[in-house]
Amino acid sequence: MPIASTSSQLVSSSPRVTIVGAGKVGSTLAQQIGEKNLADVVLLDEVEGLPQGLALDLMEAKGISQHSRQFIGTTNYTDTAGSDIVVITAGQPRKPGMSRDALLKTNAKIVVETATNAIAYSPDAILIVVTNPLDVMTSLAWQATQLPTQRVLGMAGVLDSARFQAFVAMELGISIADVRAIVLGSHGDLMVPLPRYSTVNGVPITELIDTTTIERLVERTRKGGAEIVELMQTGSAYFAPAASTLLMVEAILLNQFRLLPVAAYLQGEYGLHDIFIGVPTLLGAGGVEKILELQLTDTEIAALHLAAQEVRQNIEQARSLVKIS
Amino acid sequence: MPIASTSSQLVSSSPRVTIVGAGKVGSTLAQQIGEKNLADVVLLDEVEGLPQGLALDLMEAKGISQHSRQFIGTTNYTDTAGSDIVVITAGQPRKPGMSRDALLKTNAKIVVETATNAIAYSPDAILIVVTNPLDVMTSLAWQATQLPTQRVLGMAGVLDSARFQAFVAMELGISIADVRAIVLGSHGDLMVPLPRYSTVNGVPITELIDTTTIERLVERTRKGGAEIVELMQTGSAYFAPAASTLLMVEAILLNQFRLLPVAAYLQGEYGLHDIFIGVPTLLGAGGVEKILELQLTDTEIAALHLAAQEVRQNIEQARSLVKIS
Amino acid sequence: MPIASTSSQLVSSSPRVTIVGAGKVGSTLAQQIGEKNLADVVLLDEVEGLPQGLALDLMEAKGISQHSRQFIGTTNYTDTAGSDIVVITAGQPRKPGMSRDALLKTNAKIVVETATNAIAYSPDAILIVVTNPLDVMTSLAWQATQLPTQRVLGMAGVLDSARFQAFVAMELGISIADVRAIVLGSHGDLMVPLPRYSTVNGVPITELIDTTTIERLVERTRKGGAEIVELMQTGSAYFAPAASTLLMVEAILLNQFRLLPVAAYLQGEYGLHDIFIGVPTLLGAGGVEKILELQLTDTEIAALHLAAQEVRQNIEQARSLVKIS
Amino acid sequence: MPIASTSSQLVSSSPRVTIVGAGKVGSTLAQQIGEKNLADVVLLDEVEGLPQGLALDLMEAKGISQHSRQFIGTTNYTDTAGSDIVVITAGQPRKPGMSRDALLKTNAKIVVETATNAIAYSPDAILIVVTNPLDVMTSLAWQATQLPTQRVLGMAGVLDSARFQAFVAMELGISIADVRAIVLGSHGDLMVPLPRYSTVNGVPITELIDTTTIERLVERTRKGGAEIVELMQTGSAYFAPAASTLLMVEAILLNQFRLLPVAAYLQGEYGLHDIFIGVPTLLGAGGVEKILELQLTDTEIAALHLAAQEVRQNIEQARSLVKIS
Repeated sequence: MPIASTSSQLVSSSPRVTIVGAGKVGSTLAQQIGEKNLADVVLLDEVEGLPQGLALDLMEAKGISQHSRQFIGTTNYTDTAGSDIVVITAGQPRKPGMSRDALLKTNAKIVVETATNAIAYSPDAILIVVTNPLDVMTSLAWQATQLPTQRVLGMAGVLDSARFQAFVAMELGISIADVRAIVLGSHGDLMVPLPRYSTVNGVPITELIDTTTIERLVERTRKGGAEIVELMQTGSAYFAPAASTLLMVEAILLNQFRLLPVAAYLQGEYGLHDIFIGVPTLLGAGGVEKILELQLTDTEIAALHLAAQEVRQNIEQARSLVKIS
Repeated sequence: MPIASTSSQLVSSSPRVTIVGAGKVGSTLAQQIGEKNLADVVLLDEVEGLPQGLALDLMEAKGISQHSRQFIGTTNYTDTAGSDIVVITAGQPRKPGMSRDALLKTNAKIVVETATNAIAYSPDAILIVVTNPLDVMTSLAWQATQLPTQRVLGMAGVLDSARFQAFVAMELGISIADVRAIVLGSHGDLMVPLPRYSTVNGVPITELIDTTTIERLVERTRKGGAEIVELMQTGSAYFAPAASTLLMVEAILLNQFRLLPVAAYLQGEYGLHDIFIGVPTLLGAGGVEKILELQLTDTEIAALHLAAQEVRQNIEQARSLVKIS
Repeated sequence: MPIASTSSQLVSSSPRVTIVGAGKVGSTLAQQIGEKNLADVVLLDEVEGLPQGLALDLMEAKGISQHSRQFIGTTNYTDTAGSDIVVITAGQPRKPGMSRDALLKTNAKIVVETATNAIAYSPDAILIVVTNPLDVMTSLAWQATQLPTQRVLGMAGVLDSARFQAFVAMELGISIADVRAIVLGSHGDLMVPLPRYSTVNGVPITELIDTTTIERLVERTRKGGAEIVELMQTGSAYFAPAASTLLMVEAILLNQFRLLPVAAYLQGEYGLHDIFIGVPTLLGAGGVEKILELQLTDTEIAALHLAAQEVRQNIEQARSLVKIS
Repeated sequence: MPIASTSSQLVSSSPRVTIVGAGKVGSTLAQQIGEKNLADVVLLDEVEGLPQGLALDLMEAKGISQHSRQFIGTTNYTDTAGSDIVVITAGQPRKPGMSRDALLKTNAKIVVETATNAIAYSPDAILIVVTNPLDVMTSLAWQATQLPTQRVLGMAGVLDSARFQAFVAMELGISIADVRAIVLGSHGDLMVPLPRYSTVNGVPITELIDTTTIERLVERTRKGGAEIVELMQTGSAYFAPAASTLLMVEAILLNQFRLLPVAAYLQGEYGLHDIFIGVPTLLGAGGVEKILELQLTDTEIAALHLAAQEVRQNIEQARSLVKIS
């Protein structure tokens, strides 16, 4: 006996975000989108019951956090229709004894299939890819969905930057709220942190930390994901990855025009063509509203090109493995 | 080369919460205490690496959420010293084929040991027990630590109430922010929901929902935990349990004097003596500042006594199994 | 040289609230709508420079509070076009020596004119009236704009309820977060507080406070506005009025279906016809989604009818003074 | 009949901030400290009734915003005892026909008297001065109270920086959340903005905006206060000044070690001795935890020294006018 059943509630005007993959990153992201009161969330997974259970748990947590958003758990893509944003977190972690190729093949299949299915029901959505290897998967998702390049993004630079910011703040013993950093390139050993553009409330860290220490923090950032896997053994990082994706979702939903490093499609910027790789962008309602070209040094440009080269090789390999048309 | 290393930072004035058990409830609670900017959090688990990995992940997420709190992951109780609150979430879920007695014995041992160890380093802390079966474990933790009864609480009523609130809000199609409910008794089949005291911005739900429907919502609340286990199969609820514990932590740290149902020690209230069971309390800096005696009907009182009886039996059984002095 | 000038930013998708009257209530409301990140705000006043100065001050405060919303100050209704909500706070306070009729006439003219002008540019907006005498002004604004009754609301009951809640919380020494109250009727001496429906986390205050004390708190609520004027001498309350209006704006923008007492148009509910008076409503994207009929006692109904009678007389008087067609 | 009256509530553990001066900056700051749930607030003013009325209005707004803090309005310094922070906002604005000297004399008297009185009751407090001319008043307050220099600060640089950040964000059409700026020197025509240290998520604005435009934004920042006075005619800015002070209060209460520009006492830094002037500092629980020496150019150093010279002259003048021992 609902006392409220008018049309304005049934046809909700709330933005809607679909998250594919109800693992730890996906479910933590769902929680945060709701608690930041940004959008209704559809959590989709192929494992029957799992997304429904998580969504119900999140709906019950609303009895305490009291925000205005709905959570829907489902195994069915029809429930995702009309989403403003689709986030792909589905994928396998690398298991002991699994070859690098086998992992690439498995995740490529998952990402291509889930992205295609989700975009079929939300053709106007912006697509954010979180599955690793990130730059490769973003490229495959774009090819599979044929969305305009502006509406396809990979989440990696925000996370890498957050880690570098955390290490700088811990090193200096100061508030992380004042530390900003930009990390470009691919998500992995070839990422390109830019200490020159890393600042404490505007002051470059190069004025505050010696070169050797900075190099140590950069190296720790590069291996940031591995450091946590090594500690946790049976799992990998999810709080920081979910928070990083949240920042991108918020920038898009609120049309904030934030300057964030994301894997975006380059068409000549930084001397690179037809590749998704981490660069500074402005994120707004349209997705990647603009790619910003920083005045990089020759060394930095070279590092970016090296990263791009590796990404290209992996894309070729992935495509040969999963035979994407 | 920290630029900030004065005494005032090293001797932090931040409140400190220790969470024992780095499972999903524990780690989600840690995240929320930090993001609500309430206290520094020490996350302790016996599995080496797990709490450290989670704490590092949470520290890196600060690069985005930008609050002021620290996370420390440890397997060592000395790192928990001086905590204002200790939350026990450690314990086993019931595994297939495991007898009820075996579970009771296992968790009793864990709770007695972890509570004793934690309180040894934080003798002035308030102790919140979350491990199931809740009412029994709260009693054992109190006996083991010999803390004043005011400073020992079990988390169950807030969660049961949150679930009932969620079901009422969904049934009526209205904002959950206006729904309040109080569920008393033990956490399980014998819980005592009080529809008379469940309101929508002050209006009793008995004016808004028919009796049959209310009874259905009450029954769903009773089986709320099981409903999620049945859906998720391989896990149980954690978002709502963590949020419920957060509410209690906040009420204590901010000395809010909130009226919340928690498992508290009765000394004559509601005709019950020397037992921890769910009743409405005022929570403040001292823990249970006051137990509120509602004007219950005979039926409600009888239901509360029935729940108490079962709790007593389980306590006896648990004590015989683990031989607590 | 904007680095961001794509179409998606220029055609902002942000909701828009117009506030007419840049006094303390209006400007504080603008601040809170922005800081709660709910909508862009157009602040309009007839005094050239005042709304522009306040909007600039608020834009500069964004350098610290860092939300995503815009503030526009203007004296020109064309700048308000396309608003989702229009709030009328414009009006004179009663000055020493000013007759009651003179005040009624002055504010009636202001409200009729500003509401008409604002709705001309935002014909789909929901109109919230804050100017006193509240019930009368809401009625006049509706007549002048000829909006559907569902989309015209007066702010009074939320404020009166907030005051009663504050007095109850102070009396009991408990958290205000758990206190809920509903005050009906007109905004003034004839308001109708409902202690039966006033609760502390669901527990009726009649179980917690004796009758004499409740009557004192009710009386203080009735005279709540006057108490503050008497203290401040040269001004009247604005923090609580602005917060109350904010709650209504939020409920509408986020389609929350909150149960809030507002001055709404009755068509038979509570035995009253064709009058705006304070009753419990569900607020959602459509404005007043539903009027809730509580099971009032004869005495409460009589008090509500008495309030309605006074409002009717004042409306007649106001109409005769300003000769609205 | 309070249901909650135990000792732990009466001896509140909440931090306490005293705000002297219940004008727009003071009362808006009180509101924000409460709504950010940072501390109890004592609002003191010499005008009987005004602070009491504002505090009551703020207590009633809690019925909606539901935070945990208390507001106390008073004309009596004994009510401010034991404050952690004292903020001086009291002072006259410059009235038409009033000479510069007359204003200096008036405010010097007010600041010396109120700071002395407040610190007498809170000898361990940190003192934040907001009254203009800021650098002079901060110096006088320090001399009058004889507090350790670390515990005396003036609010100006945060406001000037916030304004510059707002102008940069508006110019570039991007989110203000990514813009950081540092403005040094005195609060007025001789302030020293540092575009080199002004960044968009780490990218110096000198890479994003041409020199002429930057110079225009700098000039607008210098005259930021006057621009708003000119618009509002009958008042001056208060939202951004209150927000700026809030940021400092939060950094101190939460021991954040934020890097913020404040008027701090120099003892050789930047070649200046024994003067309060705007420099980058780390703010924590001890007040000014550290003064940061940026690598300024000769031109920037010269500008800072010029500002210092003017401040010194004004201090001498103020001291001769009010004859401070």
